[in-house]
Amino acid sequence: MKIGIIGASGYGGLELIRLLHNHPEVQRIVLFTSSEEGKVFSHKYTHLLNIYDQRLQKIEPSQLSEFDCVFSSAPAGVASQLIPPLLGKGTKFIDLSGDFRLVDSEVYKKWYKKEPPEQSAIEQSVYGLTEWNEEKIRNAQLIANPGCYPTAVLLALLPLLKANLIHSNQLIIDAKSGISGAGNQPNKMTHFSETNENTAIYKIHQHQHIPEIEQMIGTFTNGRSPITFNTHLVPMTRGILATSYAAVCDGFTEDDLVSCLKETYAMHPFVRIITETDKFGTNQVYGSNYCDIHVKVDPRTNRATIVSIIDNLVKGAAGQAIQNMNVQFDLAQTTGLTHVPSFI
Amino acid sequence: MKIGIIGASGYGGLELIRLLHNHPEVQRIVLFTSSEEGKVFSHKYTHLLNIYDQRLQKIEPSQLSEFDCVFSSAPAGVASQLIPPLLGKGTKFIDLSGDFRLVDSEVYKKWYKKEPPEQSAIEQSVYGLTEWNEEKIRNAQLIANPGCYPTAVLLALLPLLKANLIHSNQLIIDAKSGISGAGNQPNKMTHFSETNENTAIYKIHQHQHIPEIEQMIGTFTNGRSPITFNTHLVPMTRGILATSYAAVCDGFTEDDLVSCLKETYAMHPFVRIITETDKFGTNQVYGSNYCDIHVKVDPRTNRATIVSIIDNLVKGAAGQAIQNMNVQFDLAQTTGLTHVPSFI
Amino acid sequence: MKIGIIGASGYGGLELIRLLHNHPEVQRIVLFTSSEEGKVFSHKYTHLLNIYDQRLQKIEPSQLSEFDCVFSSAPAGVASQLIPPLLGKGTKFIDLSGDFRLVDSEVYKKWYKKEPPEQSAIEQSVYGLTEWNEEKIRNAQLIANPGCYPTAVLLALLPLLKANLIHSNQLIIDAKSGISGAGNQPNKMTHFSETNENTAIYKIHQHQHIPEIEQMIGTFTNGRSPITFNTHLVPMTRGILATSYAAVCDGFTEDDLVSCLKETYAMHPFVRIITETDKFGTNQVYGSNYCDIHVKVDPRTNRATIVSIIDNLVKGAAGQAIQNMNVQFDLAQTTGLTHVPSFI
Amino acid sequence: MKIGIIGASGYGGLELIRLLHNHPEVQRIVLFTSSEEGKVFSHKYTHLLNIYDQRLQKIEPSQLSEFDCVFSSAPAGVASQLIPPLLGKGTKFIDLSGDFRLVDSEVYKKWYKKEPPEQSAIEQSVYGLTEWNEEKIRNAQLIANPGCYPTAVLLALLPLLKANLIHSNQLIIDAKSGISGAGNQPNKMTHFSETNENTAIYKIHQHQHIPEIEQMIGTFTNGRSPITFNTHLVPMTRGILATSYAAVCDGFTEDDLVSCLKETYAMHPFVRIITETDKFGTNQVYGSNYCDIHVKVDPRTNRATIVSIIDNLVKGAAGQAIQNMNVQFDLAQTTGLTHVPSFI
Repeated sequence: MKIGIIGASGYGGLELIRLLHNHPEVQRIVLFTSSEEGKVFSHKYTHLLNIYDQRLQKIEPSQLSEFDCVFSSAPAGVASQLIPPLLGKGTKFIDLSGDFRLVDSEVYKKWYKKEPPEQSAIEQSVYGLTEWNEEKIRNAQLIANPGCYPTAVLLALLPLLKANLIHSNQLIIDAKSGISGAGNQPNKMTHFSETNENTAIYKIHQHQHIPEIEQMIGTFTNGRSPITFNTHLVPMTRGILATSYAAVCDGFTEDDLVSCLKETYAMHPFVRIITETDKFGTNQVYGSNYCDIHVKVDPRTNRATIVSIIDNLVKGAAGQAIQNMNVQFDLAQTTGLTHVPSFI
Repeated sequence: MKIGIIGASGYGGLELIRLLHNHPEVQRIVLFTSSEEGKVFSHKYTHLLNIYDQRLQKIEPSQLSEFDCVFSSAPAGVASQLIPPLLGKGTKFIDLSGDFRLVDSEVYKKWYKKEPPEQSAIEQSVYGLTEWNEEKIRNAQLIANPGCYPTAVLLALLPLLKANLIHSNQLIIDAKSGISGAGNQPNKMTHFSETNENTAIYKIHQHQHIPEIEQMIGTFTNGRSPITFNTHLVPMTRGILATSYAAVCDGFTEDDLVSCLKETYAMHPFVRIITETDKFGTNQVYGSNYCDIHVKVDPRTNRATIVSIIDNLVKGAAGQAIQNMNVQFDLAQTTGLTHVPSFI
Repeated sequence: MKIGIIGASGYGGLELIRLLHNHPEVQRIVLFTSSEEGKVFSHKYTHLLNIYDQRLQKIEPSQLSEFDCVFSSAPAGVASQLIPPLLGKGTKFIDLSGDFRLVDSEVYKKWYKKEPPEQSAIEQSVYGLTEWNEEKIRNAQLIANPGCYPTAVLLALLPLLKANLIHSNQLIIDAKSGISGAGNQPNKMTHFSETNENTAIYKIHQHQHIPEIEQMIGTFTNGRSPITFNTHLVPMTRGILATSYAAVCDGFTEDDLVSCLKETYAMHPFVRIITETDKFGTNQVYGSNYCDIHVKVDPRTNRATIVSIIDNLVKGAAGQAIQNMNVQFDLAQTTGLTHVPSFI
Repeated sequence: MKIGIIGASGYGGLELIRLLHNHPEVQRIVLFTSSEEGKVFSHKYTHLLNIYDQRLQKIEPSQLSEFDCVFSSAPAGVASQLIPPLLGKGTKFIDLSGDFRLVDSEVYKKWYKKEPPEQSAIEQSVYGLTEWNEEKIRNAQLIANPGCYPTAVLLALLPLLKANLIHSNQLIIDAKSGISGAGNQPNKMTHFSETNENTAIYKIHQHQHIPEIEQMIGTFTNGRSPITFNTHLVPMTRGILATSYAAVCDGFTEDDLVSCLKETYAMHPFVRIITETDKFGTNQVYGSNYCDIHVKVDPRTNRATIVSIIDNLVKGAAGQAIQNMNVQFDLAQTTGLTHVPSFI
């Protein structure tokens, strides 16, 4: 396979590069840039010396059709313009931004404050939450790879909502993320001295992943119940832990919820249900494509605490993108993604 | 004033020592130990060289009555046995453990799995949430200094519950704490390599601060609505951020909640209401006795996100203890506690 | 006393503000800015709400003479132009930048790549390493406050060089610093995701503190022996640990070095010699104005390892600046600087 | 290949498990324990669920000969007793402790304060610094895998010493390590709250890796010049950065040193010489088997600063052990070790 990567310099791009390097079916990777044409990539990122010594290429839309698969990890607003004209020419596209995730253009405009892509491209795109869309992904030309937070949240909640074990109308989701989710642009949000030794909430009720979660939840509930969803930055580089709170439907117990999750994901290698644990944290999946889920029901309140963890750069971005590529090309989902979590 | 400190070697004790050293009304501080009698304290903690070069003293209950005020920061189960026989002899006691916080002995037994103190001592004790109990604290012989999590949570929620601006029956509290809250005993929960780069949930639905929060909330609501309360460890040393979620009572807005909080704490120097902020985090109060509160109401859900932050070792432990001592001895609450947050 | 602060928004300025707030002889503090005139300071830094709610003032050189003391913590190149015309009008100036530290203008030009201040101003300035220049500081109108690294290094080495206990011609100094030393401007060097979980060397043999150290060492040695001095960034916010290596002069032992250091600093409250310790680290002085020193001689090599630690923002910047102000105004050196290291 | 791992629960063992899982020539891995016989490994380490669900086996020396290769990552003092009787039966052993590294038993006793292994076993062992001992490793039954610090230091210094470009008699090595090097046992050295925000020196002049470095350096110099070697703990989990200082031999320049390093390692895939870089840090090799080296000569002092970085758990332990196994079994050295550094 011949792979192109747009936006290679960002963290999503770097992680794609790291993971694809050892993918057994990938023969060639070409890196595209909008601003650093001709630069030797390992001069920019010396950790890639002897590994990616190629030069960054200018994006020539006409040449992208030579590739089997093109990943775009450019910021929101780039792929929406670049990709639609290239559809239908045989190349499969996987976009890691939010540009093609929302089916309703008005919702995109409201939350992203950018012009949406053309409607026909949105209609051709498939939401790439692999475990829930495998058949559509298999035939998709354009995959809208899910956001990091929605991946963690949806994998945990969808089975329970679909089985009517929890109520959809009182969902409260409190997510915590490492700083790499904020990307590679230095700014106040990512400045070490104001980020270290600091746990902070940001974008209260305003995060652009809210409509993405609600859209997917809405497919299993009547209409869309608005969720409460907040995000926090914690002083670590990688990892997302999402703590979701839901009222349990009458008559169901913790065992029912655990069983539902286990059955749902029995055949899915990257989702694990952890039952016995004193301390459930993001190091459990560090560097791997796993999403681990842990659920407890409090008999005092009949509410469930549903905790899910991912590595935001792997299952929350590049890893899931490759998992989707594997599905598109009829490879085992785990191809090139068999990393054991590093834990330490 | 002559001050005694029991449990000086723990983190609560070290912070008391740090803060009391510059308290203008404190003339003498004596450090007590149960196990290291005779040891020069600055040999154990070299950062205290030239500051606390005194020897640790054996706890002689009969001698404690020579002190104006004795702080106990020993683990739960110590003060419950030590302090009751000493009450009524003129010395004021401030206990930083959970031993005297719960008025119902059965609740203490259930959550702490220890023998409760004798009933008469519990009845004499006053819950030391300074801003809410100032009059009782002024005359108390024994203060049960609040837990770190309850301090952050209660200061944020009590005004809104008392004013009936939020519902008490759907409270969900998601708290995050630095690791110093776990104390100075090395173990798996505090081992650097498994704590760094890791955000983890622990004691789901089981934290012993749950009944403490419910007891205090119960004084403003009919009966006690059980809360959902979870705690997370984030890779930093100091700081607690508590994110509380509540349904807003019909007809009230974000402005109402903000006004209520501002009015409640207008005359209280250590509670600040922060209205404009992009990123609200624990470094905002680092090293100080402030509790800062930020509230947003989401018109989509009519739920409020109420965020409160403290330094767990200051307002969440030693600082509030000294604030209580100041009240007991008719000093300004801010005496010795005018530290500016360090921010970096 | 009436105090002015230029460059209040930087980390040196913030730390001055934090420390001066509780200085008993300071009545008024005015904050100056070159770019944010009129802004309420606590709107910019919400952690200062209720503490510094004043507006930032435009720098009017003519008005600076109303102040007893003006601190400048602007970047290199600002004070060199601003301060010289204001000298001799009664106000004392303390500059935290490198502008007035180097007596040789050519050396300044070479290492700072900026225009030096006028020669007469340099001649009036006094290098503010308090423990070594107390008499000159007392009468100085302009103090060049030492750099963070030089403070740690010089306090450790000067006594041993002056007493001819170590050779000056083989000095190798390996320094490690927290990231706050890089200031408050977000950039690649301070971007959390590339700084966390990373220990890095930078500016090898090129750091502008090299001539500052050599100049001061040169006052005790014949001519200037060039030193090898390197700096590393470690993933923490505050603290400098400098490990200095020197050949011990014939006939001297570890005891001699320890005694020399103890005697030198016997009357200096902010320098402590630590003799017994298993692990000697920066948390030992965190948040305080101490410089702690630990020395070991290796009989296998007859070389000494001399380790010194400071909080780079306190003894390495704002704390030492205030210590110098205390000397200038005939106050006890410890006035307003009695902070106990926080350790945790 | 059938692989056994002794000491699987430690961090060296966990990293072996992580890396060997994706090694293409490894068919079976059995985990041995001295204390937790019968325990399902993924119950102890839930991050290994579905990956290592096997039970821990009791060490039966007689059965170890069924394995092609046995790794021991038990603490010092275990392999010295366990392995010698098993040599010569076809199984190859790779010991990650210091037990077989020192050829002189007296030196082992002095620095490790343990009984050395029998002399014949020491004589059969080969020091596994792969790039420098490849031929001997190929035929070895017992490999003494190098220590983490010596790996970083020796790879950087040996070429320059062998080529007589730097003097061996003034070597000063200042090393910094993440906390994982201290292992998985909770104690004061690894307690988060006293390790975070703290850079500390420990074991000054006393580290047991000193004789290991000197022994290997001694093979290229006349006799052994004692080195000065110190180690620091920095607040991160993984990574070692060693800053070595040496006097450059007359007539040689930075270019000579760089060329020597480049030529030495031209055919060695895991050692990279980095020439252009503003900031050279451990994240450059994070998670990979690389050792990167950067050298600068200061014309002011004619001394070289030679900086080397490794991931202490990979090239400094498990990665190099597998690299050695690859050599022993005539596989390409990079087999199973092609991880791209994660950088973030």
